[in-house]
Amino acid sequence: MTAETSLTARAAALDAADALAPLRDRFLLPEGVIYLDGNSLGALPAAVPEAMTDAVHRQWGTGLIRSWNDNAWWQAPQRVGDAIGRLIGAAPGQTLAGDSTSVQLFNALAAAARMRPDRPLLVTDPGHFPTDQYIADAVARLLGLRVHRVAPGELPGFLAAEGSRVAVAGYAPVDYRTGELHDMAAITGAVQEAGALMVWDLCHAAGALPLEVDRLGVDLAVGCGYKFLSGGPGAPAFLYVAARHQAAFDHPLTGWNGHADPFGLGGDYTPAAGIARARIGTPPILSLLALEAALTAFDGVDLARVRAKSLSLTGFLLDCAEALLAGLGFTAVTPREPERRGSQAVLRHPEAYALVRALAERGVLGDMRAPDLLRFGINALYLSHREVLAAMCALRDVAREGEHRQERFRRRSPVT
Amino acid sequence: MTAETSLTARAAALDAADALAPLRDRFLLPEGVIYLDGNSLGALPAAVPEAMTDAVHRQWGTGLIRSWNDNAWWQAPQRVGDAIGRLIGAAPGQTLAGDSTSVQLFNALAAAARMRPDRPLLVTDPGHFPTDQYIADAVARLLGLRVHRVAPGELPGFLAAEGSRVAVAGYAPVDYRTGELHDMAAITGAVQEAGALMVWDLCHAAGALPLEVDRLGVDLAVGCGYKFLSGGPGAPAFLYVAARHQAAFDHPLTGWNGHADPFGLGGDYTPAAGIARARIGTPPILSLLALEAALTAFDGVDLARVRAKSLSLTGFLLDCAEALLAGLGFTAVTPREPERRGSQAVLRHPEAYALVRALAERGVLGDMRAPDLLRFGINALYLSHREVLAAMCALRDVAREGEHRQERFRRRSPVT
Repeated sequence: MTAETSLTARAAALDAADALAPLRDRFLLPEGVIYLDGNSLGALPAAVPEAMTDAVHRQWGTGLIRSWNDNAWWQAPQRVGDAIGRLIGAAPGQTLAGDSTSVQLFNALAAAARMRPDRPLLVTDPGHFPTDQYIADAVARLLGLRVHRVAPGELPGFLAAEGSRVAVAGYAPVDYRTGELHDMAAITGAVQEAGALMVWDLCHAAGALPLEVDRLGVDLAVGCGYKFLSGGPGAPAFLYVAARHQAAFDHPLTGWNGHADPFGLGGDYTPAAGIARARIGTPPILSLLALEAALTAFDGVDLARVRAKSLSLTGFLLDCAEALLAGLGFTAVTPREPERRGSQAVLRHPEAYALVRALAERGVLGDMRAPDLLRFGINALYLSHREVLAAMCALRDVAREGEHRQERFRRRSPVT
Repeated sequence: MTAETSLTARAAALDAADALAPLRDRFLLPEGVIYLDGNSLGALPAAVPEAMTDAVHRQWGTGLIRSWNDNAWWQAPQRVGDAIGRLIGAAPGQTLAGDSTSVQLFNALAAAARMRPDRPLLVTDPGHFPTDQYIADAVARLLGLRVHRVAPGELPGFLAAEGSRVAVAGYAPVDYRTGELHDMAAITGAVQEAGALMVWDLCHAAGALPLEVDRLGVDLAVGCGYKFLSGGPGAPAFLYVAARHQAAFDHPLTGWNGHADPFGLGGDYTPAAGIARARIGTPPILSLLALEAALTAFDGVDLARVRAKSLSLTGFLLDCAEALLAGLGFTAVTPREPERRGSQAVLRHPEAYALVRALAERGVLGDMRAPDLLRFGINALYLSHREVLAAMCALRDVAREGEHRQERFRRRSPVT
């Protein structure tokens, strides 16, 4: 029996036993595509098109300005926020949807730093997604702080030495490049032990695995709506502010939507009570309603089961890679231990860019991160083991036949 | 002949001579509604539904991640920005669409203040829309400036005394309450004469009248996409940065989309060249594409003619109010002189809130601004003189019959 035959049998058995398989019908996936880039842009949930038609024709076209009240547009940031809150372990009234992740990071880091006015340091991960690092620098510059870049593994040592000077720590549970999963409880505990505030970037975790921001006592968190939440391109981000911090949340971007009496139209800013004070300006309602419809794909879904299936898929992908790609120049990057793995599987190869492009031509969509990582995002709501195997077979064939060395696969334009 | 008969004849004659009347077909307005709130949320342009269906099904659903390149999502902020630029008199490469007006105000005011590091004052209008004032205060606090609130009429005197200490002036050409139009050229000239930078908030002007930001030498400007641009609820805002300032534009919100090499994923921020450096995070593509489709309603439209029709409609509204509402407690607020009038007509009445609600029940949609202003926004692309007259007749009937004094019209919930 060849490796491929054996893997085919295993995939069939795993898929046959997959209790989540019916969830795939909650998404509209195109024919002929194996979609392994849901960690960059989630697939289209089946509930979205009708929701958008309703939003455009009935709510905007017919309801016009009245829809701010009649269709509760005004409440949408908090309503959608609470829906996301259910997926990250946040009780209602602590999560808000709106703006981009970058803007929400700015709000979270700046507001957190203002809660620790006597501490001069902002700590973040040198391997953090770039925008997290840039925004940390921007906040530090505006507030007169210094940024230290400390890898998660070195954080305990750093905090032992400098912890009393740290105002805020900004980290992500999942490394966006390697897919490595860090220990949120341990890091949160260490940061808070030092008296600093913990700001998590949940972009690569929300919707992919069970999160428990309330139970872990997380201070603030942000995340995006378009990866595992499948809210659409550039879907609004979210901000979580633990209830105990809301009264002290001193917003750096005091837009009128966060005012205690937004229609009183006074010239001085008085923040609203609760999470509403984290609002800024008028949110992009169409994108927000698309995200709200997308989140219904999670209705009745147990994220513990999503996590179990995701680990099965990523583990299977690494098995396929090991069995099928031997001798073709690939190295597995994502940790093998389930507790150290997010919801993507990553391989290293010097020709990553061309390989990803050649794979795309075969209908297998992954992505790459410079300079040499092939990323395969696993959304367990719509993927199967059979697809994972087919993707790895395609990658083997592309690499073995040198298909990716054709001129048209050379690097050109931006690829997200 | 009664006043109403005479006004009816005049409306018919004006509408018959209206060369812009066919533009109404570019919008989908509901039956039985006279829509006088397009200065708060523009009506649905006919091009939007199909564009949204395409964006959802083909671009997102089928194109998936590939649409960032294949459907040029990545370029959308600049492409839509240039389309708005054409309506505000900005040559290409200076206008960017994205985020909310509040966030763009923050960017504009902070970046402008950083270009005048030795000047400690930020000047804004005490009658400015609240978010403009709140954000000015927020920027001043972060950058160590002081905010002075100076009415447009008192600005020359203030600048004569304090001009050399002013870093930035933030004003709006159209007063959002009264509809008064200020002299952009004179104010821009006075501010720049003092060596300060001029930041205009064009929310109530873009799409309503011809603007010439390039010709006037405006430094920076912002505006929203959902009023006269009819881009949909919470449509992305825009930011204009004159080409001569772009190299010095020092972004306070350094998100990865504004990086010179966003996919290089380096940990240090290097701003992109040109207007691209004003980008922040990933924009809400669905809302952005709705705005882009909406802007096609302006294709081939001469804004000078839109302005002429708008003045005819607002002037006619004030005439109707004078003739029909005498003795009912209304006062006209919007200036009579065309050169001092934006694209709305405003009446004062102590029962403004209830009157606007009672009017809405008759299908006449305006809005109110606390405590006592009835605002009637005039979008000349889809309104007629006949509708303006019908609205004022309805208001007369409501007020005369005391219809608005019914219990159900008492103030309750937020109304935008």
